[in-house]
Amino acid sequence: MADLPKAFQDYYPDDYSHCYGCGKLNANGLHIKSHWDGDESVCIFDPLPHHTGGFPDYLYGGLIASLIDCHSAATASAARCRQAGIELGTQPLPRHVTAALKVDYLKPTPVGQLTLRSRIREITAKKVVVETSLSAGGTVRARGETVMVLIPERAVR
Amino acid sequence: MADLPKAFQDYYPDDYSHCYGCGKLNANGLHIKSHWDGDESVCIFDPLPHHTGGFPDYLYGGLIASLIDCHSAATASAARCRQAGIELGTQPLPRHVTAALKVDYLKPTPVGQLTLRSRIREITAKKVVVETSLSAGGTVRARGETVMVLIPERAVR
Repeated sequence: MADLPKAFQDYYPDDYSHCYGCGKLNANGLHIKSHWDGDESVCIFDPLPHHTGGFPDYLYGGLIASLIDCHSAATASAARCRQAGIELGTQPLPRHVTAALKVDYLKPTPVGQLTLRSRIREITAKKVVVETSLSAGGTVRARGETVMVLIPERAVR
Repeated sequence: MADLPKAFQDYYPDDYSHCYGCGKLNANGLHIKSHWDGDESVCIFDPLPHHTGGFPDYLYGGLIASLIDCHSAATASAARCRQAGIELGTQPLPRHVTAALKVDYLKPTPVGQLTLRSRIREITAKKVVVETSLSAGGTVRARGETVMVLIPERAVR
């Protein structure tokens, strides 16, 4: 995956780019990046040394949930563009919020490079259902399912 | 809740106190603290200013999942002690790992003080099912359900 193009998250409009997990305007954030790889989206992420779980050589489960959430949200937005025949970068990405997140933790995850891969299970005018695996060392460690809901305009609290 | 006693997390054994979310030995972590309040466990948490979601005044959904996860894990351990009639602090807390985490995001959450409240739905020799609400400004914003599995000894990868 050398010479990667811009990531999905680079195409979010600026007013939606403040996410701690993936926002390009969050100076303290994790800055995860997602790309297409055929029908799947992929994100490679290197946790920081302090992203430990209870035991010092296990990854923090909250980070696993967080990465699945952000990568799935960006995948939902990119998939909506792809379905509409809109090339990434020709207009700001549509924005989704997470309605539901489910993570099954299958095996302990070491604190090392992670690979997330997502597929679209369902896409409608209002929502996208995304299935994600999280692997380390070539082994799937967790699986996620998210329901992402399109924001037609700025949601009111 | 003035003059709080030690939190559940303060009673984890040292080798299990490295969690980014709640470990007393993680110098860079969030250090969440959970206590009993009758039949419920409670955690009050103040997010950092950079814990934003896509929009700068929304809380990061990954943090919501992370807080539910850590608070539920500690609640599971404290509940196991309570069920066995063991007073907190008289021996190290039993340790649980998350098998499954589900979060329903009900309303946008502002970046302000959060209150998590958990109840035990099921407790067996091997697992604890914990239900959690996350509120801000007196309104429930998210609900979580976690399945916590007891670690009888150090899990092998």
